[in-house]
Amino acid sequence: MKPRGALDTALITSAVPASVAAAFTRNRVVAAPVVVAREHARDGRARAVIINSGIANACTGGAGLDTARATCAELARSLDIDPAEVLPCSTGKIGVALPRARLLSAVRRASLALAPGAFWRAARAITTTDAFVKADKREIVIDRRRVTVAAMAKGAGMIAPDMATLLVFAMTDARVSARALRPALRAALSGSFNAITVDGDTSTNDTTIVLANGRAGNSPLRAGSIAHKRFTDTLSDLLGDLARLVVLDGEGATRAVEVVVRGARSARDAKRVARSIAGSTLTKAAFHGGDPNWGRILCAAGYAGVPLEVRLCRLWIGGVELVRHGISSGAEARAARAMRGREFGVVLDLGQGSGAARVLTSDLSPRYVRFNSAYST
Amino acid sequence: MKPRGALDTALITSAVPASVAAAFTRNRVVAAPVVVAREHARDGRARAVIINSGIANACTGGAGLDTARATCAELARSLDIDPAEVLPCSTGKIGVALPRARLLSAVRRASLALAPGAFWRAARAITTTDAFVKADKREIVIDRRRVTVAAMAKGAGMIAPDMATLLVFAMTDARVSARALRPALRAALSGSFNAITVDGDTSTNDTTIVLANGRAGNSPLRAGSIAHKRFTDTLSDLLGDLARLVVLDGEGATRAVEVVVRGARSARDAKRVARSIAGSTLTKAAFHGGDPNWGRILCAAGYAGVPLEVRLCRLWIGGVELVRHGISSGAEARAARAMRGREFGVVLDLGQGSGAARVLTSDLSPRYVRFNSAYST
Repeated sequence: MKPRGALDTALITSAVPASVAAAFTRNRVVAAPVVVAREHARDGRARAVIINSGIANACTGGAGLDTARATCAELARSLDIDPAEVLPCSTGKIGVALPRARLLSAVRRASLALAPGAFWRAARAITTTDAFVKADKREIVIDRRRVTVAAMAKGAGMIAPDMATLLVFAMTDARVSARALRPALRAALSGSFNAITVDGDTSTNDTTIVLANGRAGNSPLRAGSIAHKRFTDTLSDLLGDLARLVVLDGEGATRAVEVVVRGARSARDAKRVARSIAGSTLTKAAFHGGDPNWGRILCAAGYAGVPLEVRLCRLWIGGVELVRHGISSGAEARAARAMRGREFGVVLDLGQGSGAARVLTSDLSPRYVRFNSAYST
Repeated sequence: MKPRGALDTALITSAVPASVAAAFTRNRVVAAPVVVAREHARDGRARAVIINSGIANACTGGAGLDTARATCAELARSLDIDPAEVLPCSTGKIGVALPRARLLSAVRRASLALAPGAFWRAARAITTTDAFVKADKREIVIDRRRVTVAAMAKGAGMIAPDMATLLVFAMTDARVSARALRPALRAALSGSFNAITVDGDTSTNDTTIVLANGRAGNSPLRAGSIAHKRFTDTLSDLLGDLARLVVLDGEGATRAVEVVVRGARSARDAKRVARSIAGSTLTKAAFHGGDPNWGRILCAAGYAGVPLEVRLCRLWIGGVELVRHGISSGAEARAARAMRGREFGVVLDLGQGSGAARVLTSDLSPRYVRFNSAYST
């Protein structure tokens, strides 16, 4: 399904039934595999995730839904499990039919190629326009047992704050019920994949899945316990790192910029302002050029729909204070030097309260536009 | 204030006090001249509009406000009118102080250079990054009197649906009270400058002003009358044409695309969907490449926050039906041919009701990004 024989099918399985927590796109147009995976994840148990890249199986009508279900059935036969234990995912072009026979054959071959050492190859198989593979793992000790958490992500285009256009798969041998796994995933997403933007487009296929199969042998992690908190922090840290890589690998991106808004009346207000700044094509173009155009940043803050008094505002770029009492401090040249790096921060203090939020964004480059002007043809 | 001696100061006056209607940016960060013009327009009467381009006088604190007021005072002295009859406007870079002495001298020279034939030079003086001058006029007969409506606009960057980043000045000799002029302006804006987008950024300086001085000698236009309707239609038509030129002249724009959404449950829903499509960097990049990537259009419709059933959707580009029952009709090649022109339409029918809306947008080109990556430095 991908050109030049590139890897395009990945399979993740658990030796025993695993607890599952999942999060899906908030787009009203959802791909067929999202419909099926949502159904299959509802009972909190799963054994396998099957992913194809290159074709999204979105806007493909009843035939697309049949293909997603046939994929689950085929894999269930190969692995001798229940089709409802399989979660299907697709990523790639919208509106194109998946070649069903070829996909089912790929599914069978994937089930024969299962191997513990294939983690990085699977992480490569789920990518589309990604420039590099994004995967990592963490280890912690719980109840004197070594617990491993590993995850892989694909990103590149259509990365918006709500669930981003992504596939994210995390696997752990921690023993934790689906009920306790869900808040851990929710917390981990809020500071990672729900706090990044590349182009503001929320895709039809966004899916994050965590499988936890309990093979570490710890006593079950209960929500609210110290061990559960440590597990959640580890998952948050891991997904946070992958989210940063997704931004750095945004289509055409050359820079990752952390936008922090503080001093807002509430965290909600701070988030709206941070997203407005992080999403503006004008601020993103200025980030690309390393141009300390703070007027555009204040302007984007001003149309976020949040009360704002410009004379109370302070603004830093790369640690250099550019704006005080809403006017220039005259430090543009120093700020321009601070913007030469591949990563820098923008901090806007609204001076109105203690609400704060953080969004990671990429710059907008001519390459992004060139790339996306001829994607389908 | 502009490099290379380019025209940067324009003055519009009326021989007699005129009725005025105005609309200003909804950004919470407003430039100093917007604060002053809003104050001076409140009583519905004005004699002059003074505009400088190159420096926006935004985020310039108390000193910027003093400069805006000093501009009005200086012009009032030169023309022997009241400072409160002067509406000041600025456009250009945010956060930079206007050179006050130089501006006041320019204001005096402008008052000496007033001439009926200077309309097009004034329209050129208000431009910043515009590639061409945008101005036009219409004539209608009311009460057997010839009534003229003329207008000029500047656009290029920071063009968002709500009031857009624009300066628009309309002048008419129609006799009409400020009270009857306001609904005419509101109606004219809703189908013109409030229905376009270039980059989604709402500026700090957006201002639209209509002056009506009654010299045509018609009997006063009353809201609700047939003559008032004809006047409103003429103003709408004129501003509609200028709004189209602003989109065609968007920074880096090579195409103007009319996005029509119909079959929505309400006009409000239709507008949200049309704006989501017209504002997506991915759809705009595809428009640039003439790529009939209808999946991105449905995707952008899907995250507009409006109920949507993809199987009810139909989509046309350039009159070619691309999507029926939410899936491809197979007409991609024909649609690609229809997208070769400089202007084409996208029609999305949601199949749910009779709500409709229309937004005019530009494509997103690599040139837009290059241009905006080094604007201030």
